[in-house]
Amino acid sequence: MRLRGFQKLTPIENALQLLFDNLRIERSNLITIPLHEALNRVLAEDIIAKEDIPRFDRSAVDGYAVKAEDTFEASPFKPKTLRIIDENEVGEKQAKQVWTGNPIPKGANAVVMLENTNRINSKIEVWTSVTPCENVSKKGEDIQKGEVAVKAGTRLKPQHLGLIAALGIVEVKVVERPKIAILATGNELVEIGGKRREDQIFEVNRLILSALCRELDAEPVDLGIAKDDVEEIFGKIKKGFERADIIITTGGTSVGVSDLVPEAVNNIGRPGVIVHGVAMRPAMPTALAVADGKPIIILSGNPVAAMIGFEVFARPLICKMLGLKKEERRLTVKAKTTKRVSTVLGRKTFVRVRVLQRNGEFFAEPISARGSGKISTMTKANGYIVVPENREGLEEGEAVSAHLFDNVEVVDEDV
Amino acid sequence: MRLRGFQKLTPIENALQLLFDNLRIERSNLITIPLHEALNRVLAEDIIAKEDIPRFDRSAVDGYAVKAEDTFEASPFKPKTLRIIDENEVGEKQAKQVWTGNPIPKGANAVVMLENTNRINSKIEVWTSVTPCENVSKKGEDIQKGEVAVKAGTRLKPQHLGLIAALGIVEVKVVERPKIAILATGNELVEIGGKRREDQIFEVNRLILSALCRELDAEPVDLGIAKDDVEEIFGKIKKGFERADIIITTGGTSVGVSDLVPEAVNNIGRPGVIVHGVAMRPAMPTALAVADGKPIIILSGNPVAAMIGFEVFARPLICKMLGLKKEERRLTVKAKTTKRVSTVLGRKTFVRVRVLQRNGEFFAEPISARGSGKISTMTKANGYIVVPENREGLEEGEAVSAHLFDNVEVVDEDV
Repeated sequence: MRLRGFQKLTPIENALQLLFDNLRIERSNLITIPLHEALNRVLAEDIIAKEDIPRFDRSAVDGYAVKAEDTFEASPFKPKTLRIIDENEVGEKQAKQVWTGNPIPKGANAVVMLENTNRINSKIEVWTSVTPCENVSKKGEDIQKGEVAVKAGTRLKPQHLGLIAALGIVEVKVVERPKIAILATGNELVEIGGKRREDQIFEVNRLILSALCRELDAEPVDLGIAKDDVEEIFGKIKKGFERADIIITTGGTSVGVSDLVPEAVNNIGRPGVIVHGVAMRPAMPTALAVADGKPIIILSGNPVAAMIGFEVFARPLICKMLGLKKEERRLTVKAKTTKRVSTVLGRKTFVRVRVLQRNGEFFAEPISARGSGKISTMTKANGYIVVPENREGLEEGEAVSAHLFDNVEVVDEDV
Repeated sequence: MRLRGFQKLTPIENALQLLFDNLRIERSNLITIPLHEALNRVLAEDIIAKEDIPRFDRSAVDGYAVKAEDTFEASPFKPKTLRIIDENEVGEKQAKQVWTGNPIPKGANAVVMLENTNRINSKIEVWTSVTPCENVSKKGEDIQKGEVAVKAGTRLKPQHLGLIAALGIVEVKVVERPKIAILATGNELVEIGGKRREDQIFEVNRLILSALCRELDAEPVDLGIAKDDVEEIFGKIKKGFERADIIITTGGTSVGVSDLVPEAVNNIGRPGVIVHGVAMRPAMPTALAVADGKPIIILSGNPVAAMIGFEVFARPLICKMLGLKKEERRLTVKAKTTKRVSTVLGRKTFVRVRVLQRNGEFFAEPISARGSGKISTMTKANGYIVVPENREGLEEGEAVSAHLFDNVEVVDEDV
């Protein structure tokens, strides 16, 4: 039995390598934006502290700033008595009231917590001894002047925004959102909710792929639907080329005469299609092309295959363009399969799984290794596992790495 | 030694229970929006399939639609020969070319893959037998008419959008974003980047808490900064009351005379403050209040304490208002501590940790159990572990549940 169309399937790793070898991938342009709009953006420059945080020794509690030595040996049974002062310098046997965050007055080196004192008119009884620096946040203990507070290539989370703000910075340089042009091809496709002939279906891949882009903070550019026509496909991809950094197409790639997208792409620029047919399942008909240094990812028209293809080929590209320190992978947990899975030799198989957590342990229930057209398998699943090429499946109870793309349901909870 | 101010610290669970008991929490209003804007929104109504997907039996591959019986016993050595037809009805010993997604013509019940055939003029040789339904996606196999495609209370991910789109639905009812009014209090606070006196600092909590709200798809409403003045605080919270579903304040809650926010809140409505002082660390001075059925969460001014307080008290409230099927928890993984941690008895302690993954196993490196003022401990960490009240710490190598709030670094990778 001969394999037609794809004379040879390229392993995923080689396909990716070929893609990167043929590209001039650069980090996208930089743009300065207000800090309060920077959530989930990727920081483009190291944020270097221009001052210490805290800027001054400050009280970490509500209480009285004192000389620590004046409290030594204090106890509830033998309290030490200190005089409360208003001045900004604490002398021997003196105490000055401070609230959390207040500067430590001169002369003081520790703070006694309010609850460990008893005020009697203008004096306090101190019931506990404090050591020097106790309850004091030292100047620079959070961040020191000159230190890198947040590194370039960091995806900014609420805590990063907080730290940058504490330095008085109101604008940050971030990486511009890479623009991803998305084209669907196929005579059978109709816009969602549009009028269909009997044999037509709604086109859903552009919506799904746009959402996947947005999740990574990339900007989808819609190229619409092209009929199965090389000229039309060529024209639309060409338009995408002018407006985007990456072009993704769906449909029109297969073993047969309907192999239109690779043909159209080869007319756009050099080297054209460099991979056609990948040793994976689903998404086997995926093709990868490069024209004038820009990547074109030619995905299957099957929604599940398109999603997996995006995951494997578009995600690492987008992460690179975003200048992320490290490729942002799906969180991966060790899980046990809850039933057997059979797969085909020679193909890396992406099996959708429903991952559950029971007493802290993860379990992966295979949804279906087949049916790349069934979108419902993706909504029933919250992750996938990868069965290597040299296996014909997995046993029940086997330990696998499950890559999560949605929340994990906690069935029964530990502590 | 007496504990002043907080006569009694309320355990977290009781505090939450009290809060919910005093509230009239309802799901936020519903709003209809275009499907392509619905990523990460919470679906408000079950999506019920109005038709089968697929709507018709369709080919799952590129190839030839045939009567399966005509291929029985076919092999590369003894191929079966079928006549290619153009008509839409396949008779005995006939085959009609189909592409992936095409309807199965009448009379046919299976598809032979292109690569298992050889075309000779108007005939094909079939090299492999197919069973009835092989390579056919059956009508309704993805979703059946009347089935619930996506359940109300689901946070919409790309795959959900795809499934809804496949049903031809272009608009969805989602839950409106709950509005969360955020007020910072404190004479020491200055807007980020503004002019500071020597003893003043930049106010960062509103920015952090707004970002935490946005991560959950809630809408922050900025109430600005209030001085330590009961009247001013009262006025601003009152304004928040008119514009928001939940009010969050930071600062002005402690054991001492600076206890201004709880005082202001008690003037707003009944029952007022119901919890003041929680048996946790950080965020011990947290207070919870309810006025006229609306929650007011009074957080510490320390950024780390404010974040943990938000996590523990605001997150479940927001999830409830969003009508999520289940509270959206941080993903929790089993990890081993990499060093000892000491904590205080009687307080549930939230220890920030840096979680690493090595050969699939998770390790949690405690950053610091102290210093709730140090924001940098939150940027160094990517999760937290919780040490129970009845423990004075954790041993090195102890198994813990780590709750993740940022990406996990993979140090060394398993397949």
